[in-house]
Amino acid sequence: MIQEITAQALNPRRFIAEKVDEIRRAVGDGMAINALSGGVDSSTVTMLGHRALGKRLISVFVQNGIMREGEAERVVGLFRKLGVNVEVVDARKEFFGALKGITDPEEKREAITQTFYKNVFGRLVRDSGMKVLLQGTILTDVDETVAGIKRQHNVFEQMGIDPRIAFGYRIVEPLVQLRKDGVRKLGRSLGLPAELFKRIPFPGPALSARVIGEVTPERIETVRRATSVVERILKSQKVFQYMAILHADRVTGMRDGKRDFGQQIEVRCWDSLDARTATPTRLPFEVLEKLSRAILSEVPGIVSVTYNIAPKPPSTIEAV
Amino acid sequence: MIQEITAQALNPRRFIAEKVDEIRRAVGDGMAINALSGGVDSSTVTMLGHRALGKRLISVFVQNGIMREGEAERVVGLFRKLGVNVEVVDARKEFFGALKGITDPEEKREAITQTFYKNVFGRLVRDSGMKVLLQGTILTDVDETVAGIKRQHNVFEQMGIDPRIAFGYRIVEPLVQLRKDGVRKLGRSLGLPAELFKRIPFPGPALSARVIGEVTPERIETVRRATSVVERILKSQKVFQYMAILHADRVTGMRDGKRDFGQQIEVRCWDSLDARTATPTRLPFEVLEKLSRAILSEVPGIVSVTYNIAPKPPSTIEAV
Repeated sequence: MIQEITAQALNPRRFIAEKVDEIRRAVGDGMAINALSGGVDSSTVTMLGHRALGKRLISVFVQNGIMREGEAERVVGLFRKLGVNVEVVDARKEFFGALKGITDPEEKREAITQTFYKNVFGRLVRDSGMKVLLQGTILTDVDETVAGIKRQHNVFEQMGIDPRIAFGYRIVEPLVQLRKDGVRKLGRSLGLPAELFKRIPFPGPALSARVIGEVTPERIETVRRATSVVERILKSQKVFQYMAILHADRVTGMRDGKRDFGQQIEVRCWDSLDARTATPTRLPFEVLEKLSRAILSEVPGIVSVTYNIAPKPPSTIEAV
Repeated sequence: MIQEITAQALNPRRFIAEKVDEIRRAVGDGMAINALSGGVDSSTVTMLGHRALGKRLISVFVQNGIMREGEAERVVGLFRKLGVNVEVVDARKEFFGALKGITDPEEKREAITQTFYKNVFGRLVRDSGMKVLLQGTILTDVDETVAGIKRQHNVFEQMGIDPRIAFGYRIVEPLVQLRKDGVRKLGRSLGLPAELFKRIPFPGPALSARVIGEVTPERIETVRRATSVVERILKSQKVFQYMAILHADRVTGMRDGKRDFGQQIEVRCWDSLDARTATPTRLPFEVLEKLSRAILSEVPGIVSVTYNIAPKPPSTIEAV
């Protein structure tokens, strides 16, 4: 049973001191490695690990091809300013190869997990000889895994799998007592810039979690463009999260007076404190129309746009 | 080229007199038959044919299993009050048999068309020996067929198919110069009650046009329930049309704290004059939330609800 620390109860200085100790004890006189996706959780873990280990922490950004527009450049640049060197590993071919032909969400997550841990990251770790992996698992991930709602790809220990046996290395999860609001508070305290620790959450499987059906480079490019539009238009909204989802269903549309059997983008925008429950944001209709116009004109192949109006539960935040 | 008569230019008395003549000339001293779906177009044609032929017009309601809740009883009862006898033919098995395994929208329409004309209705006509079929094709149907946007099932003549050869009978389409607003004006003049001529449009392929993917009795039942909810909640809105669409895509949801891989209903509500262009109605968010709550609680298997925000074009009014 993990002891929750609420954002209110969190004393960042004391928490950082404790976790720095914990990480140093786990690593000993060796080195550690962590994968930085650019999200709040992995960014906070990177700063915590950097604080504990300095250059004995290797932070890797895995370019899996399913990230948002310009993500690698953005993350590397941002951490360079903070004095943290980030290594970029191009693994696009491996990920798209693993995802080919898969439509089931669980199998997708599994393919990404396996490719990430066993192949790309596992290989890096094995080649480097490092024994410890820092990871940004938070309490909500654990809850959802235990409840069987969604298998997060970063909760091996909670699932009773020993990662030393499963993948050849050990995972340290310093954020596991916190929820999203606690992580934000901690990130702020660790010196992460506002643009980063205030970032809306993004799922582990990245844009592949935003594609219903098969994940191909073309479909990822479609949802990537839609994601850019949604993030551009909604960035000024004070909300928990927003996203664009590419559906597999084809719907009838028309362009230039001709039938055009096209694709649909679903937009979700959530009000939530901690992702456990969430309600669709009551966006003004002008904003919904702006979203629709921009997606229809900027994203090739899209003829239909919807806005999610179902709360969590019974919906989940992500569709896939 | 069909000469359009706008609603404004329409003189119902003169139009009725002309069409009554035209129908009588076509039928001679024989009889005619028409299929009444309960929509505005077929109801108006029924009244026009009844005016021209009295008991020499046989109006048939084909129970195809893909109609809205209580539709047969409603239509038969309503026309009984108007002095028109309607025959109900149960053809549910034939329609679901023809639709089994089909997911392509065109093939669905084709299966319904073929089942309706060749099998069910064609057989009725052949058995009865009647030569003339009255049909409620309107100008928008013709436009969309010519433009190749959507094949309506009732426009054989415009598509260059001679229905005398294709299916063994002749089609008379007295409403073909009108659009929806003109048909409503005409229906009023023919004595149709407000509840009917003010009815929102419903597509020829009925609820099968509201199911993306395979049409089964179970999926029709799901979309039928969602349709009842949407019609109940939106009936007081002054809009052109509203609908519930069952998606084939599965989305992640949760019920009782457990993962529940469920289905999605898309709600569309349109502002439009004549269906040629349309914009999503700016429904108040309270209404959207009411829709979502009611669908999620009343329709088994649904975990997600969206609202369409794309205009026509590039969307079409129906999704299938």
